[in-house]
Amino acid sequence: MITLTSDFGTPYPAAMKGVILKRTDARLVDVGHDFPRQDVRGAAFWLSTTLPEFPPAVHLVVVDPGVGTDRDALVVRAGDHVLVGPDNGVLLPPARALTSGGDGDDYDTDIDAYELEIDDPESSTFHGRDVFAPGAAAVHEAGIDRLPELDGLEPADDVVDLSLPDADVRDDGAAGEVLVVDGFGNVITNVPGEVLDGRETIRVDGDDYPVVPSYAHADEGEAVVTVGSHENVELAVNRSRGDEAFGLAAGDPVELSFRD
Amino acid sequence: MITLTSDFGTPYPAAMKGVILKRTDARLVDVGHDFPRQDVRGAAFWLSTTLPEFPPAVHLVVVDPGVGTDRDALVVRAGDHVLVGPDNGVLLPPARALTSGGDGDDYDTDIDAYELEIDDPESSTFHGRDVFAPGAAAVHEAGIDRLPELDGLEPADDVVDLSLPDADVRDDGAAGEVLVVDGFGNVITNVPGEVLDGRETIRVDGDDYPVVPSYAHADEGEAVVTVGSHENVELAVNRSRGDEAFGLAAGDPVELSFRD
Amino acid sequence: MITLTSDFGTPYPAAMKGVILKRTDARLVDVGHDFPRQDVRGAAFWLSTTLPEFPPAVHLVVVDPGVGTDRDALVVRAGDHVLVGPDNGVLLPPARALTSGGDGDDYDTDIDAYELEIDDPESSTFHGRDVFAPGAAAVHEAGIDRLPELDGLEPADDVVDLSLPDADVRDDGAAGEVLVVDGFGNVITNVPGEVLDGRETIRVDGDDYPVVPSYAHADEGEAVVTVGSHENVELAVNRSRGDEAFGLAAGDPVELSFRD
Repeated sequence: MITLTSDFGTPYPAAMKGVILKRTDARLVDVGHDFPRQDVRGAAFWLSTTLPEFPPAVHLVVVDPGVGTDRDALVVRAGDHVLVGPDNGVLLPPARALTSGGDGDDYDTDIDAYELEIDDPESSTFHGRDVFAPGAAAVHEAGIDRLPELDGLEPADDVVDLSLPDADVRDDGAAGEVLVVDGFGNVITNVPGEVLDGRETIRVDGDDYPVVPSYAHADEGEAVVTVGSHENVELAVNRSRGDEAFGLAAGDPVELSFRD
Repeated sequence: MITLTSDFGTPYPAAMKGVILKRTDARLVDVGHDFPRQDVRGAAFWLSTTLPEFPPAVHLVVVDPGVGTDRDALVVRAGDHVLVGPDNGVLLPPARALTSGGDGDDYDTDIDAYELEIDDPESSTFHGRDVFAPGAAAVHEAGIDRLPELDGLEPADDVVDLSLPDADVRDDGAAGEVLVVDGFGNVITNVPGEVLDGRETIRVDGDDYPVVPSYAHADEGEAVVTVGSHENVELAVNRSRGDEAFGLAAGDPVELSFRD
Repeated sequence: MITLTSDFGTPYPAAMKGVILKRTDARLVDVGHDFPRQDVRGAAFWLSTTLPEFPPAVHLVVVDPGVGTDRDALVVRAGDHVLVGPDNGVLLPPARALTSGGDGDDYDTDIDAYELEIDDPESSTFHGRDVFAPGAAAVHEAGIDRLPELDGLEPADDVVDLSLPDADVRDDGAAGEVLVVDGFGNVITNVPGEVLDGRETIRVDGDDYPVVPSYAHADEGEAVVTVGSHENVELAVNRSRGDEAFGLAAGDPVELSFRD
């Protein structure tokens, strides 16, 4: 199985699929191709919450604002999964998410990184088609156990890493940040959802809001604070857009104050 | 085969696919994930026109404004098909559409409804991932004939139903309603297309428009009335948006007056 | 394998998939369904650059502003590939692209066109579902070698052709045209990329811009000229939209002037 993630819209992902299907008959599954353009951190967050739902697979990830520069191409083994994409940090948070759990004693928590040779690609602007898709197909065909001996791969040093920012949680509140806004307009922060345990209201950037178990526990149009499916604090409006009501976008700071 | 329908955008559908693919290697087919947000009736209409095109399948449907409340989860057998989704009415119109036709004497027109146990889901906001996707995978793996004995299913009573509204067709006109607006801006009403038979013009909300067999029979930019692929009266503009020209949105009343 | 291309958005492509899957268990791959509405030339360009990446396949293409008129339906064999769609020119540029290269002596460069019988379709507005999808499924099931004897096909004469316009390249500049704008806002012209070879700047519509190997060689927000993955001159802004910066849309003329 090969999953595909990009910020390409239409029809560039199809070119990647064609390239792959010329080389393997693997099952292809789209994670999505309308991720926010060139938002490496946002993609890293979404992949961290989404890829662990999948069975072992090769994950092709192309959110790549540095395409055509001298940034490297990476193949990262994360437990039973493999990620293929640019060396800009986007692969590391999902690699850690893929290896932080597991159900058995022999769950593999190792992460190995390989540099994927960039061998005179046809274009300087579409390495998704010319570098990463052929790389993902080759890795799939070889199988995860043969990565160390695969032609065009060598152990990587100096991998670019990226960490999603941690919130500063205090006794009386938390200073956090908006990680992403989803398609419903729900504002997803980096503040752990457990800060809401047992609270009925919370102050966000100076105003008080009810804490609810899900959107539908609010009146239509009411702004609320809840724990999202990613287990973080989420700012939302029932049947409308939280980003507009709270005036927040990805990257904005968020100040929570606990009142009892 | 499992089809997937939601109003989730990106990347929540991928999480559902991962969950399913951990449990079954069924073929997955997207019906769509950008249905109008939380529009249960609109989704019910689209599914009623689209799902009957499919061979027997399990249809996962998650348009679910009540997620996290005490609304039930349903599994509905409709002839050779099975629908899995929230108990908010969205499954019943397509279930009836799936059982209203058929090609042979032994076509199965029965509809059975089961309640799907909601067993302490991980989240209160993403039952698509935590309840319905595992449910659809389990139903697919068991097969339609074993539904009555499947763990976690019991016969449902008091199922929430939803009926698409009927138009009031008179000798001199029809009082109808806009069901949905499609991506082209075509305004799809609930008035049966046969009211246009033999007519060259029709009055809509007080103005006269030509009746045409398809959009391209009008000049570019001309507003027209036609019969859509769903066999209902449709208000359109050749190469432009009917919703803007007619000033209509989903749920608006439409008054047709027949003139000869 | 059957690929699907349309300007349908959601959920009409799913109806086509259902129709196909009732007739064949072919692998289905979406090229895309949000191509610019009714832009036959734009679709022809994108397909010309994308379909040659695929292994031999049946390509269903429905960008069809003339649906319901007396335009014919076509099946076009292009080497080892088959295209199925309306007779409005959209199939011919990709057919030529599919037969203009190849890796071996016995590469098949022939193009044959057949008319696909339109046999009383259910609707006048959705031939994608009622004519082209069943046609693509029938062609896939029969196999490319049996096209000449397939029921409902007969050799076509008088096929509508469409040529992407050629740029006028002179010693001191080039007069070209915008073919499409992609989802990033990159402006893709019909001027061959090699005119940029060895140049550091170029004048576009009267203003000078740097020539760069890829977007990231420019400062954020800087307007640049580059060679895109389709090997044409592309006007772009690093991390923003080229169409807005250059004030250009599909179909607009572009005047390049070479300065050294």
